Amino acid sequence: MKKIKVNLEKKLSNSYDICIGSGIIDRAALILAKNNWASRYVVITDSNVAPLHADRLLTTLGAAGLKVDLIQFPAGESSKTIDTILKIVDQLLALGVDRKSGLIALGGGIVGDVTGFVASIYMRSLPYVQMATSLLAMVDASIGGKTGVDFGSGKNLLGTFYQPKAVFIDIDFIQTLPQKEFRTGLSEIIKYGIIDDAELFHLLEKEGARISPDNTDLMERLISRSDRIKKGIVEIDETEHGLRRILNFGHTLGHAIESESDYRVTHGEAVAIGMAAAARISEKMKYLSAAERIRIETIIEAAGLPVRVPAGLTLEGILSRIKLDKKKEGDKVPFVLIKKIGVPFINGGVPAPMIRETLEELRA
Amino acid sequence: MKKIKVNLEKKLSNSYDICIGSGIIDRAALILAKNNWASRYVVITDSNVAPLHADRLLTTLGAAGLKVDLIQFPAGESSKTIDTILKIVDQLLALGVDRKSGLIALGGGIVGDVTGFVASIYMRSLPYVQMATSLLAMVDASIGGKTGVDFGSGKNLLGTFYQPKAVFIDIDFIQTLPQKEFRTGLSEIIKYGIIDDAELFHLLEKEGARISPDNTDLMERLISRSDRIKKGIVEIDETEHGLRRILNFGHTLGHAIESESDYRVTHGEAVAIGMAAAARISEKMKYLSAAERIRIETIIEAAGLPVRVPAGLTLEGILSRIKLDKKKEGDKVPFVLIKKIGVPFINGGVPAPMIRETLEELRA
Repeated sequence: MKKIKVNLEKKLSNSYDICIGSGIIDRAALILAKNNWASRYVVITDSNVAPLHADRLLTTLGAAGLKVDLIQFPAGESSKTIDTILKIVDQLLALGVDRKSGLIALGGGIVGDVTGFVASIYMRSLPYVQMATSLLAMVDASIGGKTGVDFGSGKNLLGTFYQPKAVFIDIDFIQTLPQKEFRTGLSEIIKYGIIDDAELFHLLEKEGARISPDNTDLMERLISRSDRIKKGIVEIDETEHGLRRILNFGHTLGHAIESESDYRVTHGEAVAIGMAAAARISEKMKYLSAAERIRIETIIEAAGLPVRVPAGLTLEGILSRIKLDKKKEGDKVPFVLIKKIGVPFINGGVPAPMIRETLEELRA
Repeated sequence: MKKIKVNLEKKLSNSYDICIGSGIIDRAALILAKNNWASRYVVITDSNVAPLHADRLLTTLGAAGLKVDLIQFPAGESSKTIDTILKIVDQLLALGVDRKSGLIALGGGIVGDVTGFVASIYMRSLPYVQMATSLLAMVDASIGGKTGVDFGSGKNLLGTFYQPKAVFIDIDFIQTLPQKEFRTGLSEIIKYGIIDDAELFHLLEKEGARISPDNTDLMERLISRSDRIKKGIVEIDETEHGLRRILNFGHTLGHAIESESDYRVTHGEAVAIGMAAAARISEKMKYLSAAERIRIETIIEAAGLPVRVPAGLTLEGILSRIKLDKKKEGDKVPFVLIKKIGVPFINGGVPAPMIRETLEELRA
């Protein structure tokens, strides 16, 4: 037998900058024009974001000398499908987009996931950048290169790890968000406090009522602090084989509740309930003190987020969805728990009856 | 503006071994059992290969203590579609395949492309290995991590660069190939001689009639020599942004002829005609001597491969497909030419009339 080794031990340069600030869009245009990532760009966005921000972005990019086109798809989780991907591919083909072109994801998490996925598979990959417009995308989805669409009963069942060339976070966009959307982003910021940063948690407790979309300075602080945590975790575990899973705190039950509600419960609301449940399970398993569990519930409720499972969702429905969670490995369902605020760990075997009991306690 | 850098300057370990020899399958089973790439495997193959080799592979893997399932799809280029991908995804879901599972591509280039693509996007990637059964896959498609399916008029329009964990090349499989398939592989071996290795070219000239599927020693020599060339190029340019394009020698026209014939002309036959045309263009542009161009045509014909465009294909049809070739960038159609045997280069601007004239000369 002959053995030939293919040496691909290369230093891979997937690094990129996250630019955060007020009125970042103008700066983004200059950065895109200066860097040689692509000879032309296609902005991909959805029907919610397009009327708010597309015109200004296209004008700004055009003024910087860039050739730009626009593709939009209907807003909402129901667009996060392979059909949307293929429709965008059709439009890219019609525009004559080739391997020297780049994509710009202008929108929230769904736009980012869809655009990143298209970018990763069109002609075996195009460069792309994220321009996050939702608070949730600003602190979570836009960073880390996770892309994907739902398939069958699986959330993000098809997707890739594919890093953007840059992430642009314009704080001004927050002011155009509906309050529900603003809160869904706050839910993830609270998560960063719980899993990584007792100081951030304390800051959230202290600032309380001053947290609002037009408090630009405070929002910039909260967002950049969250993004530093996210990027630190992604750097250590780009492809979610270890540490990165702690980011799923509150998400095992959160995803189940979100999809069982057919997305009437927002991602942030569902994660808030999931975090309350995970805190309660942590307490039941003697890891977390009752006092810290109560602080967690209090901060979630202070942010206008729920800690209880809405009436109308059956426990059976939620539990059956956990079994389908794509993160199960073999027969174990991992669960992210906490020992105290800022100290998470992965527990491979929370007994099913304890999950059920916790959800019973948390019924609205 | 705050700027946070996401540092992903990591050393990426995408290296893998190509194992070449007679009766490699048994060895492969031990290697899979020994390595901890996955806790179970799914073999993906097509309707041509399944009856020939699937039973033995499943038995061998089972005997090595591995949990294995089988998925097959209809053989042929018409299966290289997103529909096939989604059908396989459905079957993987039904089998309960999760992120700890691995895929095995048992087959030729299409099976490898399809399996690699599924592996790269299912739950944001599964590990996979290539078990090449066709000579073409043994010397080309199985190495280098290119995956993909056709879409619309674009060959491999959707796909990824995603490296396998290992490539297994069992020389014995060659003996089950139809002669047409054997020749299509020879075409790529000749290509390696032309673009990289005057000695390999000379070996092919010298051995001539002794090249046959059951001449195991000679085939092992030709395959490993070809694979060393391919892997050397892939190592330098994993994602086809530079050097790797020289592997497309003969392929610009080859792909056009192959798809214009609706795949009645095999890949190897089409590439053979494309190589003859590229040699002729190289001569017309005063890079290549007439003597070397004739040596190239001679060796192609000696291998039972065509150098002329089959009757029934219109030049207009072929030329219109070049415009759609996904490798065009901006407005230029790059063409790989040669200065002499072993010395290729990329020429960005072969005049369209010269391409037309060359094809006219090469009409059957």
